[in-house]
Amino acid sequence: MKMTTHIVKFLPHETEIEVPDGETIIHAAMEAGIHINASCGGEGVCGKCRVMIEQGTVEGGITEKLSLEDQDKGYRLACQAIVKGDLAVRIPVESAMDASALRMHKTPRRSAHIREMNFDELKEKGLFVPPVEKKFLQLPAPTPQDNLPDITRLISYLNAQHDEHRLDVALSVIRKIPEAIREKDFEVTATLVRPVRDVGKTRLINVQPGDTTRRSYAIAMDIGTTTIYGQVIDLISGDVLAEYGDFNGQISYGDDVITRIVYAEKPGGLERLQEVVMKTINKVLDKIIKKSGIDHEDLSTITLAGNTTMTQLMLKINPKYIRRSPYVPAATLYPPTRAKDLGMAVGDHVSALVYPAVSSYVGGDIVAGVMGSGIYRTEELTLYLDVGTNAEIVIGNKDWLACAACSAGPAFEGGGLKYGMRAEKGAIEDFSIDPLTYEPMIITIGHVRPKGICGSGLITMVATLFEMGIIDNLGKFNRDLKTPRIRQKDGIYEYVLAWKDETQIGRAVTLTEIDIENLIRAKGAIYSGCMTLLTEVGMSIQDIEHIILAGGFGSYVDLEKAMVIGLLPEIDPDKVTFIGNGSLMGARMSSLTNRIRKDVVEVIKKMTNFELSDTSSYMDNYIAALFLPHTDINQFPKLKSRLEAHKKN
Amino acid sequence: MKMTTHIVKFLPHETEIEVPDGETIIHAAMEAGIHINASCGGEGVCGKCRVMIEQGTVEGGITEKLSLEDQDKGYRLACQAIVKGDLAVRIPVESAMDASALRMHKTPRRSAHIREMNFDELKEKGLFVPPVEKKFLQLPAPTPQDNLPDITRLISYLNAQHDEHRLDVALSVIRKIPEAIREKDFEVTATLVRPVRDVGKTRLINVQPGDTTRRSYAIAMDIGTTTIYGQVIDLISGDVLAEYGDFNGQISYGDDVITRIVYAEKPGGLERLQEVVMKTINKVLDKIIKKSGIDHEDLSTITLAGNTTMTQLMLKINPKYIRRSPYVPAATLYPPTRAKDLGMAVGDHVSALVYPAVSSYVGGDIVAGVMGSGIYRTEELTLYLDVGTNAEIVIGNKDWLACAACSAGPAFEGGGLKYGMRAEKGAIEDFSIDPLTYEPMIITIGHVRPKGICGSGLITMVATLFEMGIIDNLGKFNRDLKTPRIRQKDGIYEYVLAWKDETQIGRAVTLTEIDIENLIRAKGAIYSGCMTLLTEVGMSIQDIEHIILAGGFGSYVDLEKAMVIGLLPEIDPDKVTFIGNGSLMGARMSSLTNRIRKDVVEVIKKMTNFELSDTSSYMDNYIAALFLPHTDINQFPKLKSRLEAHKKN
Repeated sequence: MKMTTHIVKFLPHETEIEVPDGETIIHAAMEAGIHINASCGGEGVCGKCRVMIEQGTVEGGITEKLSLEDQDKGYRLACQAIVKGDLAVRIPVESAMDASALRMHKTPRRSAHIREMNFDELKEKGLFVPPVEKKFLQLPAPTPQDNLPDITRLISYLNAQHDEHRLDVALSVIRKIPEAIREKDFEVTATLVRPVRDVGKTRLINVQPGDTTRRSYAIAMDIGTTTIYGQVIDLISGDVLAEYGDFNGQISYGDDVITRIVYAEKPGGLERLQEVVMKTINKVLDKIIKKSGIDHEDLSTITLAGNTTMTQLMLKINPKYIRRSPYVPAATLYPPTRAKDLGMAVGDHVSALVYPAVSSYVGGDIVAGVMGSGIYRTEELTLYLDVGTNAEIVIGNKDWLACAACSAGPAFEGGGLKYGMRAEKGAIEDFSIDPLTYEPMIITIGHVRPKGICGSGLITMVATLFEMGIIDNLGKFNRDLKTPRIRQKDGIYEYVLAWKDETQIGRAVTLTEIDIENLIRAKGAIYSGCMTLLTEVGMSIQDIEHIILAGGFGSYVDLEKAMVIGLLPEIDPDKVTFIGNGSLMGARMSSLTNRIRKDVVEVIKKMTNFELSDTSSYMDNYIAALFLPHTDINQFPKLKSRLEAHKKN
Repeated sequence: MKMTTHIVKFLPHETEIEVPDGETIIHAAMEAGIHINASCGGEGVCGKCRVMIEQGTVEGGITEKLSLEDQDKGYRLACQAIVKGDLAVRIPVESAMDASALRMHKTPRRSAHIREMNFDELKEKGLFVPPVEKKFLQLPAPTPQDNLPDITRLISYLNAQHDEHRLDVALSVIRKIPEAIREKDFEVTATLVRPVRDVGKTRLINVQPGDTTRRSYAIAMDIGTTTIYGQVIDLISGDVLAEYGDFNGQISYGDDVITRIVYAEKPGGLERLQEVVMKTINKVLDKIIKKSGIDHEDLSTITLAGNTTMTQLMLKINPKYIRRSPYVPAATLYPPTRAKDLGMAVGDHVSALVYPAVSSYVGGDIVAGVMGSGIYRTEELTLYLDVGTNAEIVIGNKDWLACAACSAGPAFEGGGLKYGMRAEKGAIEDFSIDPLTYEPMIITIGHVRPKGICGSGLITMVATLFEMGIIDNLGKFNRDLKTPRIRQKDGIYEYVLAWKDETQIGRAVTLTEIDIENLIRAKGAIYSGCMTLLTEVGMSIQDIEHIILAGGFGSYVDLEKAMVIGLLPEIDPDKVTFIGNGSLMGARMSSLTNRIRKDVVEVIKKMTNFELSDTSSYMDNYIAALFLPHTDINQFPKLKSRLEAHKKN
């Protein structure tokens, strides 16, 4: 189904952009890089974002902030007016904006292409090896002359009719079989789980009365430090039938992996954390199983991916030594386990398959992302980046993979800022600034008056302020600018994004130099991590041909802005892909095909882990990255030429 | 250590017997086939068993029943006098016993040779394949340059130093390893469980701090319908360190497998029976683990053998269809299971290995007996017989094995008789009769006044009465005999073994014609079972070269008597071996060597099961066997010639 789109032309800039039907004009302007003064976040109360509709029609955009006369002239509030056809929209040049200012408008917003998993593509690429197969059988009833044990009868017919041999039988099947085969007069369906390796044995995990061959399901789960996601997957169609995410109950015991490990070291702490995460897992399982309407008996496997600490906690393995140098995990490969033994509220026959890790800080979530994103199969040199409180970096292609983890701090998630917040309603997520008046244009999530700043908003703000010359390459405000928006408070310079009476919090929302410093350190840690990996393998950042972003962070970040601040290397935005929850995608893929589970063992062997803190070049790279965008501006040639063009004006 | 023995010569019979030091004279007489009137069971109160010590010395045997004059003459009570040197003992011929009566004395008591398992012999025969091996390792401590995961470190050194590869790792090991390897400064012992098949993988099941290689144990258990036995086995020496048996708690829910199955079919019944048997198992485990002083961490496997119903109940598999034609078990091969999952109070790492069965009524206990007795490796045509309420029969050798089960009823365990009892204190276990006076000689277990008759006593009585001509080949008393010992009560003929005032029960203890009938039916079922198996494979009972008796029953039965009643075919008693609890012996053997576990899969394939009720020749064979010893006396040539000799006298 193709989306209806319209062309919006902004005047006097003469800039056009294609937007989906129903988009607001202010969003379209932001996407196109057109500044419109706006300080209420899109709620329609400041009345500053007046635009004139010169051609075409919009819906809404009329409020008491507009006089009837202005309404008649075609003025609308950009934050309220909805695009319903091709438009020409004039931005009123109320201030003395000159030609140079027009040329200084920011780069159009560029978010990453979203890539979703495609089951048919997996099949086409020869990556499909069914992990579970169901076989229907009509068995003869036993007689005195033919009184084979029930399980032997089933196996001998599986052998004769389906050429199945060397089967391992689960005790739970033996427990079920006497009633299962008699319930529908010796018509039964056997569920066979295939070995990952060819030398392995097929495992008979279930037997059901009648023909259930068309009902075969698996569950994929991402066990995040903060959130746990689950998906029910139809193993025949490849479709996701239900999905649900919930906060990891362990949050009450600490925000990050370190505090969780500390808790786990207390007496009973590990057991408690395992119970708590299992409670969340069971809540998610219950929701998605009910939502999809599947029968527990038709579920075969649960594939889970999480970072090394989450994995060890879930498996009740003490993570104590993960947080102590030299950062040794108990294991990186985990045996298949009965899901029920871990505490999951599913049938006896269901296996829990846990993604392997590479090291204490490059966990199964990243390995899953590598498998899900396909980086291990690409020719192109690819950077895979999963940014949260920790950032995990993988660089490589089908021949080699280098990986590292670094602590980015909470800035990308809106943490640690004066007015930082998660990407929730009221968070300023988009920002532009008038190059002459320094008045802002802000859009908040939910189009309400602002409450704070989220991670993607922070990146956009810092990049915009830097490119406009309002902050320097150290992130310090230009002390010479004459505007009430830039002020000192408690001795710290800050930019006022919204005045006290424009916010929801009864105070002004500002961006401080300390916030900017936090961001610089965060992006510096990641960029220098990438640099270090590349240096260690004898390559440079210019060699990167493709970037894959994973994690919540990547979903809305403006790629151009991320390059301006030096978080990402400069690259054609078309070469940046967003895969969403990479961990969940990887778990889903290995639910669907054993080929992934087979490959993963080879892939983790191929993944060379670098402990950045033990890699001598890392500190030098880090210090060099504590600038906007970097000490070495030549690594960002496009930005360099733009900055030089600005200077000439 | 050789036992001290003495020669006892009985006069006037001129019969000599070698007996162990400390034996009573009455026992020596019974063994030698010499009749001495005795009706108090050996308690010394009837005073009938006076004998004269003509040469040598005895201890004891003097009571108030002997006058001082008689004591001076050398008279002693045979039941109280203890052999302490070579003796000549004269039996007083107070009655008119003539020469013919002397010649009619019964055959000497012959019990089966006891064979015990010999670990060294297993090794010599090339049957030793270690099932568990412990490896000690001194690992280097991790450093920033060498921060392998703990388990990877262990495995890589197992590989480098002990050439171990392709290891499966249990989750419980991953849970233990972080603390285990650090507790004794990276000195650890790894426990490896070997695969039964060469293509299998070795399983790393435990890791312990320090060097524990000299402590490696397994447990063998026999899960009987009535009794559960367990043994702790030292896997290095092969020794049994502790043994204990206790009544199966399921007895409260029914005496035999059928009543247990009926109970298991009730709602919650299966779960209840599983809990109850597990409670007994845990009691036995606790006793033997404490008694042997082993550490739970040094225990690797528990091997269990039981009949098919006991096995299914223990594994929580509904045995419903075992008791319904065509008698189909759920399975005959059971996967290795975590002992803890079944409810056993042992470590996470301990596996429960359950002996496979052949059919619903030839269970893992018999298969274990076949493995333990070595019948599957013999050249000789061997009859393996395990007699309890059910009798299981295996006939064959290394080339083929035929097996069947038949219901013998409780007679062999003293059940279903007017004065029947288990082989406990007060049970008449040995019997002789004066051919002229018909006065009995009885010995009870514990040498106390009689309470009843146990299985082995019953066989001896019936055989003796038949050979003396007191009962005929239908088991009916000779109505012409004039003796108060044979009487009619409530219309049924019976023989008075002990008068009212000689017993503990305030009534006479008697043997009735109905009791004899029960025994004839029981032995007939077994003998005809053997006949049928032999007929089906085209052989005859004379072809049997060796008999192996298993089960409590075989321990004390007089072999000659068993041949007289037609329970066993006539064979040189030296060719009869008693192995005790065959099920436990088999469990112990497969605890000690994987070779048995490997062979057993082939052996059960080789074991052809005959459902006797569905085998047409069985009923004919059964009817022919309802005589003493059999319709066809020619099958018992030695007895035939003895009977003919008696007639001539």
